[in-house]
Amino acid sequence: MLNFRNDYSEGAHPSILAAMQENNLIPEIGYGKDDHCKHAADMIRERFSCPGADVHFLVGGTQTNMTFIASALRPFEAVICAGTGHVNTHETGAIEGTGHKVLTVPAEDGKVTPEAVRLVVRDHPDEHMVRPRLVYVSQSTEVGTVYTRAELTALRAACDDLGLLLYLDGARLASGLTAPGCDLLPADLPRLCDAFYIGGTKNGALFGEALVLVNDALKPHFRYMIKNRGGMLAKGWLLGMQFEGLLLGDLYFTLGRHANAMAQRLTQGLRAKEIELAYDSPSNQVFAVLNKDKIFDLTVDVAFEEFARWDETHDVVRFVTSWATKPEDIDALLKLL
Amino acid sequence: MLNFRNDYSEGAHPSILAAMQENNLIPEIGYGKDDHCKHAADMIRERFSCPGADVHFLVGGTQTNMTFIASALRPFEAVICAGTGHVNTHETGAIEGTGHKVLTVPAEDGKVTPEAVRLVVRDHPDEHMVRPRLVYVSQSTEVGTVYTRAELTALRAACDDLGLLLYLDGARLASGLTAPGCDLLPADLPRLCDAFYIGGTKNGALFGEALVLVNDALKPHFRYMIKNRGGMLAKGWLLGMQFEGLLLGDLYFTLGRHANAMAQRLTQGLRAKEIELAYDSPSNQVFAVLNKDKIFDLTVDVAFEEFARWDETHDVVRFVTSWATKPEDIDALLKLL
Amino acid sequence: MLNFRNDYSEGAHPSILAAMQENNLIPEIGYGKDDHCKHAADMIRERFSCPGADVHFLVGGTQTNMTFIASALRPFEAVICAGTGHVNTHETGAIEGTGHKVLTVPAEDGKVTPEAVRLVVRDHPDEHMVRPRLVYVSQSTEVGTVYTRAELTALRAACDDLGLLLYLDGARLASGLTAPGCDLLPADLPRLCDAFYIGGTKNGALFGEALVLVNDALKPHFRYMIKNRGGMLAKGWLLGMQFEGLLLGDLYFTLGRHANAMAQRLTQGLRAKEIELAYDSPSNQVFAVLNKDKIFDLTVDVAFEEFARWDETHDVVRFVTSWATKPEDIDALLKLL
Amino acid sequence: MLNFRNDYSEGAHPSILAAMQENNLIPEIGYGKDDHCKHAADMIRERFSCPGADVHFLVGGTQTNMTFIASALRPFEAVICAGTGHVNTHETGAIEGTGHKVLTVPAEDGKVTPEAVRLVVRDHPDEHMVRPRLVYVSQSTEVGTVYTRAELTALRAACDDLGLLLYLDGARLASGLTAPGCDLLPADLPRLCDAFYIGGTKNGALFGEALVLVNDALKPHFRYMIKNRGGMLAKGWLLGMQFEGLLLGDLYFTLGRHANAMAQRLTQGLRAKEIELAYDSPSNQVFAVLNKDKIFDLTVDVAFEEFARWDETHDVVRFVTSWATKPEDIDALLKLL
Repeated sequence: MLNFRNDYSEGAHPSILAAMQENNLIPEIGYGKDDHCKHAADMIRERFSCPGADVHFLVGGTQTNMTFIASALRPFEAVICAGTGHVNTHETGAIEGTGHKVLTVPAEDGKVTPEAVRLVVRDHPDEHMVRPRLVYVSQSTEVGTVYTRAELTALRAACDDLGLLLYLDGARLASGLTAPGCDLLPADLPRLCDAFYIGGTKNGALFGEALVLVNDALKPHFRYMIKNRGGMLAKGWLLGMQFEGLLLGDLYFTLGRHANAMAQRLTQGLRAKEIELAYDSPSNQVFAVLNKDKIFDLTVDVAFEEFARWDETHDVVRFVTSWATKPEDIDALLKLL
Repeated sequence: MLNFRNDYSEGAHPSILAAMQENNLIPEIGYGKDDHCKHAADMIRERFSCPGADVHFLVGGTQTNMTFIASALRPFEAVICAGTGHVNTHETGAIEGTGHKVLTVPAEDGKVTPEAVRLVVRDHPDEHMVRPRLVYVSQSTEVGTVYTRAELTALRAACDDLGLLLYLDGARLASGLTAPGCDLLPADLPRLCDAFYIGGTKNGALFGEALVLVNDALKPHFRYMIKNRGGMLAKGWLLGMQFEGLLLGDLYFTLGRHANAMAQRLTQGLRAKEIELAYDSPSNQVFAVLNKDKIFDLTVDVAFEEFARWDETHDVVRFVTSWATKPEDIDALLKLL
Repeated sequence: MLNFRNDYSEGAHPSILAAMQENNLIPEIGYGKDDHCKHAADMIRERFSCPGADVHFLVGGTQTNMTFIASALRPFEAVICAGTGHVNTHETGAIEGTGHKVLTVPAEDGKVTPEAVRLVVRDHPDEHMVRPRLVYVSQSTEVGTVYTRAELTALRAACDDLGLLLYLDGARLASGLTAPGCDLLPADLPRLCDAFYIGGTKNGALFGEALVLVNDALKPHFRYMIKNRGGMLAKGWLLGMQFEGLLLGDLYFTLGRHANAMAQRLTQGLRAKEIELAYDSPSNQVFAVLNKDKIFDLTVDVAFEEFARWDETHDVVRFVTSWATKPEDIDALLKLL
Repeated sequence: MLNFRNDYSEGAHPSILAAMQENNLIPEIGYGKDDHCKHAADMIRERFSCPGADVHFLVGGTQTNMTFIASALRPFEAVICAGTGHVNTHETGAIEGTGHKVLTVPAEDGKVTPEAVRLVVRDHPDEHMVRPRLVYVSQSTEVGTVYTRAELTALRAACDDLGLLLYLDGARLASGLTAPGCDLLPADLPRLCDAFYIGGTKNGALFGEALVLVNDALKPHFRYMIKNRGGMLAKGWLLGMQFEGLLLGDLYFTLGRHANAMAQRLTQGLRAKEIELAYDSPSNQVFAVLNKDKIFDLTVDVAFEEFARWDETHDVVRFVTSWATKPEDIDALLKLL
């Protein structure tokens, strides 16, 4: 069975599991106050050029998004995101569960634009409506596209104008930042965002996301917030240890580059076969428009997700590559198509 | 440095880490829909004699408590627990964070009695007050004591009388059920409780708690609830795999018995030295009353927690044993005292 | 200054204020347990032909919506409504404040259709998304349109198919049910809806909405819910007394009919002047497309709200009539246009 | 039937109802943006000597408490109050409903002391527990006692030391500030508290509480908060108009003084009869210890509340006086005792 279902189908990169094995019986202080977490946070501050940032490690993406947003907003404040945004569609109302409305903007390519943000703010002028306060973006987006430096800079400028916070969900940050055509550098993120997270789960960790708080106003008492939302891991060093592994020798971005290379190999193969692509994704998600019968047949040999309807006879399917995808998997998939 | 700080200072029991290593690169379905989770749930239903129960795996204890309570209660309903109860004191208001008041009863020994529950219900007669709806107990309790079968049966009867749910927090269930003097059997829990959880984090897992929903009314749509609270682990099979390991050959209770044996060795040593014990704990937490100077000296060689004030010159310290504690650690600690 | 800003610009219908005056110094039991509330509830059950319904009186519409929805839904469940729905746009996130996502359907005319509801349910198939659970409609809608009996019956059928609750916001129910073309009768509401509310604030009361709970499953402990959300009025008899007045001699619908007649007079006048109407509203809100310069001039003599943009040179303005509007006000407004 | 059940059994002071009658058909801007609210706010700022304070009018006490607290605290922060505090006992978990834990201190006489506050803060040292952030007091308290200027000043000093906010619930402020032995002046409240509210419901209004926000940090966007919690009254001028009436000629405190005089008359009568008083209350609540048979007999002619158990044969009953109580009512009650 070929696996293109998602980028969290395997365990951890072997070097990470080896570290966990090696340190398994060494007693540690709990709740993320250990040296692995301290060290990993330092490595992140260095790699992302944000010496003054606070770094917190959480277990998963929804947990990170909801804990951060619940901490950053007052009760009547709202999030702005693309209609396809993960916080809008795939978190079972976790953001609303913390009391906050999610306002969506139409976004064909999954990206929020300054114009769209301005319209939302204009249409929420008084206290009978929520107060837009935070723009949520993801890199790469839910449809595989990436923000360029110019785009994120323009969004930052709009946020400054409008008094909004800018938050970047980096569940797929490794793939996003190393995607062809993406000129955003790690150092750009803390310069342009108030906060962002570096996703581990989808790029070689067993689990774990590193939340980076850049804006000083967002820092106080954040550990209380994590615990209050049930997100404080008892054996917190497991998170630190995994990020130490991911940052070591830039493994994090190396893995992202590999996932992208596999996706490019697939994309080129699909184009050669004149199979239409639903989104122009340079990152590790590939969205192919396939005949429904073909899709039915494919499920025998390949694990993947049906993503959306396309027309009467075609649907969009999603193939996701990862650090663990092998070139021969791509070739086998292409042969089946 | 001797470590008696807590029972979650080490990684996983070696057999569990070995399984994770072995399966590391085998692709799995995410979010707990894999075969390891199915198998582990079956093993739990069998070991705890509850063939009809639903089993869900969550990452940590606070997360499990808050997710279950938020699912079981309506907005105006409240929890009853001992003043020392974990949900009251050590979860940073996570229960209140889901909207529910925690009503406490005085409990010298950490245990809730039917009489105390009846008084709380009597004192909340109408809609100007919260509606008491769920009794929270823990086995073992936060001060190491354990409920006997007679005690839990009496509590169940009171709950039936008063229309209350009974929920048992089993963060330390392995130690609790195998403690000397505890006649509760695994099969008693689903018979007496509406729901309970089997703690992995403090008994040999890297992380993980297995929530067992016995009462049919509490079952529907619980997976929505987990996701809504940020508790659904992407690589959910890691939870199933760990509980497979813990249930295999009754390892779970074997580890609990070992922790208790180490605690008994310590308790006997303390008694031999005529050191007073603050609680009569048969389980893996030992509460010793020590002179403040002695405590200060001890911190050089031993990791432990200061638990409470005792008198002008003495404090209570807590020594916790675990599946990883060695007899020679106990002897070394006793030598230092 | 002519007043068409809204239908809650004056105090109470004189007969209601007279009753409050008359009973002012008669001591009453608080919190809605008085005889006026009992009597008003009986009158409502009779007028709306729902002898088994529970009736609760709340102070305002947002409060009623949020209290009811928070009571009816579990944490991960969501509301479906028109994009223009009051709970979506004009309640400052009060519904999300209780933890629930509001899912919108496009609705040119402010009305939810069975087809739109089916699509929302189809697109929310699993636990990674919220669970749609309640359809919110308003009669009349936020753009003045009304559901016919056939339309509401079809919506009910869809709700039954899909396991959804149907809730009707009757902030403008008097105008809605007496609007030309509306064949819905008071007795249809409890037959078709699980719950609905009868708006007093916008139809002759100082304040007050009567929530009618028809579905037995929604009834238990609702008074706890009201208090928990801060909505229990100490001098609750003021609510009962006002609804006694509104139900007496069918004053409620008489006032609604008057508001509609005034709106029709205005609509006919606008049509005679060939002024475009943005919505085909038979009820007490009239939406006129006016030249921006005209709008600017009009603000000197008339109070009204700008509702939406229309084109480069025109905006939509809203004129609202009420029980207190006089024919000569309409004529004066028409003269100004 | 003599009425001593509470101080919200009648409608409004006649002068207030007269104003409502007189202005009934004058169109006003909604939601508290009218001139009556502006004027009443000015009168409050002047009477309480706080020219820079923000004043908001809400409908009821629980609504005011929960809206203010939800606005002032971050999710993991907690309230400290007396065990008898209204927010702890009689608001059906409304505060917890907004996500915040209520921490109680023992308080025989219903009053919070600096020492008690210090202990709570000391016992909540880290992020595994809630962060105490706001001290809630009431004047008069739930058992009729009053804080002196020295007491409130000491509490303020403790709050300053500990980084806590001080909030005063003035549901019975008129009686509290005019009670014999209370040397607190209106001008002391904004000097000592971060926020407080002036209760109208229990002192001559139909409904209404005026929340005074003194601390600048608590002011921004508060109107959003009111709407988000369902507390924004459409015909908001009804609140302003009532407070205009209450502030006019110091009617507010005149009514409070009357209620106290009636209570003193009762207290003296009870003392003359050697009936024990459960609390030493100088304000408008009198707590008498009565034989259970006597209580049973009394219910024939008098409305009152049973407050607490006293001993095997006696209970504590509460008699409440108000602006509407007449001396002959007191004498009639005393005759019955």
